Amino acid sequence: MSKIDRPFDEELKNLKEKLLEMGARAEEQITLAVRGLKDREEKMACQVLDREEAINCLDIEVDEMCMHMLALRQPMATDLRFITSAMKISSDLERIGDLAVNIAERTIDLLKQPELKPLIDIPRMAGLAQEMVRDALNAFINRDEALARDVCLRDDQVDQLENQVFRELLTYMMQDTGTISVAVDLILVGRHLERIADHATNIGEDVIYMVRGKTIKHHIEEGRATGLKGCSGGE
Amino acid sequence: MSKIDRPFDEELKNLKEKLLEMGARAEEQITLAVRGLKDREEKMACQVLDREEAINCLDIEVDEMCMHMLALRQPMATDLRFITSAMKISSDLERIGDLAVNIAERTIDLLKQPELKPLIDIPRMAGLAQEMVRDALNAFINRDEALARDVCLRDDQVDQLENQVFRELLTYMMQDTGTISVAVDLILVGRHLERIADHATNIGEDVIYMVRGKTIKHHIEEGRATGLKGCSGGE
Repeated sequence: MSKIDRPFDEELKNLKEKLLEMGARAEEQITLAVRGLKDREEKMACQVLDREEAINCLDIEVDEMCMHMLALRQPMATDLRFITSAMKISSDLERIGDLAVNIAERTIDLLKQPELKPLIDIPRMAGLAQEMVRDALNAFINRDEALARDVCLRDDQVDQLENQVFRELLTYMMQDTGTISVAVDLILVGRHLERIADHATNIGEDVIYMVRGKTIKHHIEEGRATGLKGCSGGE
Repeated sequence: MSKIDRPFDEELKNLKEKLLEMGARAEEQITLAVRGLKDREEKMACQVLDREEAINCLDIEVDEMCMHMLALRQPMATDLRFITSAMKISSDLERIGDLAVNIAERTIDLLKQPELKPLIDIPRMAGLAQEMVRDALNAFINRDEALARDVCLRDDQVDQLENQVFRELLTYMMQDTGTISVAVDLILVGRHLERIADHATNIGEDVIYMVRGKTIKHHIEEGRATGLKGCSGGE
């Protein structure tokens, strides 16, 4: 209600704050889910489930703030791009929250079974993914293209770790079928963390788009592998 | 260039056509990837990799069309919601395309190994996921809330099938460690299909939001499990 009377700049400031809050909560969810797994503390995993709703509500709030601004402020150029990027970033953060819930659910399942081995690479993946989320958000807030690019490039490290985790667990399963159930659960945790890193990468790509006003999505990744391929992209 | 002179309605029509084209291509990618796996035809899987770029380009085109309309047409209410929904739906379709590529990559890997058993549930999952994508898009184009709701509810069937696939493959692995590598690949294919269904569900939720002008995301799912929880949701 009162928002209509507030200046546009203040609405943008509120939007940034909401996204930072979402980002902080998403990071916390990743930490809790993986620490619960590493330290075998079911309580932490349950906290993740309890806290999911807050991120979902923030996503809705951000969406409504953005719609409100698009409808009533009719922003141009830079602000328009900022607002549409915020909507996308909010979706990514919400899905990161979902993935942390998936990890927590696996954790609860895993804690009912004997420990396979002390976990090293999975917590490392979680740390990397979490930093990517934080840096992607900071890149957004500060319109920092270099940081956003750096986030996108770090995706490879997480992919490599996931591959390593996958192959190591495959070896465990081959040697002892009794480990299959635990190993498959851990493979899925690795997969969820890899997807979290993918969402952070999406955010990074949105930031680069926002700053440059040109879509680079799909290009960074392909550029690394095969040289930049051109999309005609619109008119 | 010439778009600026065209009436807004025609731009909206073009936008719908682009999204339908993306949807058709995404569906085709799912079909090719899973048929390649089922019929052990590597060529089909390779086609999926070749065709990815087209969907990525369409995503960029849709995004630019939407930004153009938001900036120059300053749409209100219904049209504004249609355009912001289109941006989100385009992202979902693009990620569905990525997931089809993931399946194709697994397929290429699987075809180097002996066949575990004729596949039944995975093609069935693919069929369901594909229908969800098609119906979600049709719900969007026709502003059909009932169809969108139906898509969201079908997500459960895909989840159940994925669970079934998962447990069956676990049994294979337990009985014969020689099947582990193939079984894990198939589990991942199941997981990718489940995520495709999730994206179709996201599209369905966006459609309901668009039609009703109220955010229902996060509610359908929770409603099923625990009764509707309230989000205060903005102001």
